[in-house]
Amino acid sequence: MSEVYTVRRALLRDRCAAVGSAAAMVSRPANVRYLAGGAPPGAVLLLGPDEDVLVCPRAPTGDPVQGRTDDELRLALLPATDGDPVVAAADLATSSGAESLAVEEHDLTVARHRAMHAVAPRLRLADLGATVEQLRVVKDEEEIACLRIAAEITDQALGELLESILVGRTERHLALELERRLVDHGADGPAFSTSVATGPNSGQGRHRPSDRRVEEGDFLSVCLGANYRGYRCEIGRTFVIGTAPAAWQIDLYDLVFAAQRAGREALVPGAAYRDVDRAARHLLDSAGHGDGLAPWTGHGVGLEIDEDPQLAPAAMGKLDACVPVTVEPGVHLPGRGGVRIDDTLVVRPEADGGPELLTITTKELLAL
Amino acid sequence: MSEVYTVRRALLRDRCAAVGSAAAMVSRPANVRYLAGGAPPGAVLLLGPDEDVLVCPRAPTGDPVQGRTDDELRLALLPATDGDPVVAAADLATSSGAESLAVEEHDLTVARHRAMHAVAPRLRLADLGATVEQLRVVKDEEEIACLRIAAEITDQALGELLESILVGRTERHLALELERRLVDHGADGPAFSTSVATGPNSGQGRHRPSDRRVEEGDFLSVCLGANYRGYRCEIGRTFVIGTAPAAWQIDLYDLVFAAQRAGREALVPGAAYRDVDRAARHLLDSAGHGDGLAPWTGHGVGLEIDEDPQLAPAAMGKLDACVPVTVEPGVHLPGRGGVRIDDTLVVRPEADGGPELLTITTKELLAL
Repeated sequence: MSEVYTVRRALLRDRCAAVGSAAAMVSRPANVRYLAGGAPPGAVLLLGPDEDVLVCPRAPTGDPVQGRTDDELRLALLPATDGDPVVAAADLATSSGAESLAVEEHDLTVARHRAMHAVAPRLRLADLGATVEQLRVVKDEEEIACLRIAAEITDQALGELLESILVGRTERHLALELERRLVDHGADGPAFSTSVATGPNSGQGRHRPSDRRVEEGDFLSVCLGANYRGYRCEIGRTFVIGTAPAAWQIDLYDLVFAAQRAGREALVPGAAYRDVDRAARHLLDSAGHGDGLAPWTGHGVGLEIDEDPQLAPAAMGKLDACVPVTVEPGVHLPGRGGVRIDDTLVVRPEADGGPELLTITTKELLAL
Repeated sequence: MSEVYTVRRALLRDRCAAVGSAAAMVSRPANVRYLAGGAPPGAVLLLGPDEDVLVCPRAPTGDPVQGRTDDELRLALLPATDGDPVVAAADLATSSGAESLAVEEHDLTVARHRAMHAVAPRLRLADLGATVEQLRVVKDEEEIACLRIAAEITDQALGELLESILVGRTERHLALELERRLVDHGADGPAFSTSVATGPNSGQGRHRPSDRRVEEGDFLSVCLGANYRGYRCEIGRTFVIGTAPAAWQIDLYDLVFAAQRAGREALVPGAAYRDVDRAARHLLDSAGHGDGLAPWTGHGVGLEIDEDPQLAPAAMGKLDACVPVTVEPGVHLPGRGGVRIDDTLVVRPEADGGPELLTITTKELLAL
C-alpha cells in the first residue's frame, strides 16, 4: 500500500526537477494526504533531495499520528510547542543543502511565507502551483473503489430517508438524520454539510438547512455525500411531497432531468470541460433560466468534495478517463423553489461502457 | 443592532489610522462576521476612507446573503463568476483613492496577495496583523449572552446522554447523538467536532471518535459544545462506566479535578495568561505527568472555538474582565486512558462574584 505513495512522490519529484527545484514543501491538507497517506492535522510534507519528511506539529497529547501513514516517511516531530511546521520544514530544507524550495503559494499565507523566509533567508521560495492538484485529477482504481463505496453508502442513507415520514419535519432534522445514516452505513463522516431544502428553498445548491418544515405540495431537494477513507462523493435529488405534482413542477423537473442527462452523456474521454457544461447548460438557457444558473454544472471529486476539473463555461481542459465528476444542473425560481439533480460519475471510454454512474438512486420524479 | 457593527468598524478604522493606513481589508471569516454581522461564505470587508463595502463572491443561486447583515454596508456583488473578492476589493480600494491597504497577512495566501498586487500595482499592501482578533478578545454582554445560551444547550445535550444506556455503543455513535441533541435544543450546529473517547482513548483532548465500544470499567471522556448565533462554547467531562471506579481512576480524577479548580480560581482580571496556565499545570507536573501534557491548559472562545488568549507557559498578556476562556487540563496515560475536565468561564471582577461558570454540568466523578 505504501508503494502507492512512494510512486506519487516520485512523480511529484520529477515535476519539480523539470522546473528546476530539487525540493518541495506540500502544505495543503488534501495534497499531504494524497502523497503521504494519513497525516495528523497541520502536518506538511517536505520532499527533499535525499529523503521525504512529514513534519508534524506537536500533538496536544497522545500519538501524534492518528490514522495511516506511509512507513517510509521519516516522521519529524517539532520540538517547539508553538512552532509552525512550515518554518521547521524551511529549516530542514536548508540544512539538507537545498537552495530552492517550491511551496504551495495558493495554500500558504503571506505570514507563514514570511516566517519561512525569516528562518531561511538564503532559501529561494518558488511556487509549486497546483502541481499536486493536477496529479490528483485522474484516479487509480483503488481511489475509485473508495468513491464507489462512498456512493453506495450515500444511496443507502438516502433510500432509508425516503421510506420515512417527511411531512412536518424540519430541514435541519432531515439533514442530521441523513448524516447519522451515512455514519451508520460505514462513512467516516459526511463529505460536506448535508443540504436539505424545502418549498421555496428547494433547488438551491448549497442551501443551509433551516427550521422550515416539509409541507404538502413542496419540492424537497437534498444534497449529501459520504466520506469513505477520505474520498468524497455527492448526490442530489429532488422530490415532491404528498399529492401528485403540479404541472409546473413536472415541467421544471423534466427540463432539469433532460439537462442533467445531456451533461452525463457528454462525459467521454477527450471532451472539453466547457462542452460538458454547455451540454447541460444550453437546455436551461434556451428555456429562459440562464440568468439564475450556478457558474458551473459539475466539478471533480476525490479527497476534496470540490476539486479539479470545474465544468464551467470558461474552463480550459479536457476530460481524461478515470476522472470522477459530478453533473449537477439545477434551476431555482425565487419564491417558488426548484429542482436540482446531481450524480457522481467516473469518466470511462465508450469501449468500457461509457461513464460509470456511482450514485444509482432513481431519478424518476417521486411523490413521497 | 447594526450600531454594534458600526462601532466596531469605527474602532478598527481608528487603529488603522494610528498606523497610517486609511483603508483595510478584512478577509478572515470570523473577523468579517464580527465587523459586518452575517456575511456569505468567502465575503471580504473593505473599510474604505469614505465607506465600508462587503465584497461578496457571486453565490451559485439565490440570495447572496443568507443570514443577518448590517444594512449600512453597501453590498458589492462581484460581476465575474470566477472573480476573487480580494482582487475586487483591491480594485475598489484603488478607485476610491486609497494609496495603501492593510490586509490580514495571516489569512491571505501568497497567491491571493500576488493577485491583488497584479490588479492594483500602485496600492501599497501593508499588514493589518491580528488587530481584529485583538478587538474580539473582550466580549460585550450581548456576545456573552450568546455564549451563555450556547453553554445551556451544551449542558442539556450532555445531561440527556448521561441518562441513556452507554455500554456497547461506539464512540462515533455517541458523538453523533450528542450533535443531534445540540441541534434539537436550538444550536445552529456543533461548535467543533464532538469528541468521545473511551477506555484507552479517554483523556485525550481532540480524540477523533472511533468504532470502539463503551465497556464496563472504562473511563469515558466527552468534549462538545454548541454554536449559537456564531458563538461557540466548550465542555469536557470524564465519567466511569458501570461498576465503582478503580483506585487509580479515583486518584487520577481527583488530581485533574484539583488542577482544573486551581485554573478556574486563577481567573481574575489582571492575571497573567501564563500564571493561569501554571496554576493548573504545576499540580499535574508535580504528580509526574508533566511530559505528556498539552501545550496549553485553556484558550479563548467566541466566534471561533480556539481564539486568543492562549493559556500557555510562554503566553504574553493579562486577562481582562469579560474574556471568556476554557480551563481544560487533562492527563492521558498511554494504554490506560485518562481524565480531562473542561469548562467555559467568563472572567469577572471579584466584586461581581468572580469567574462566571457557563458550563454547569457537575464535575463529580459519576459512575454511569
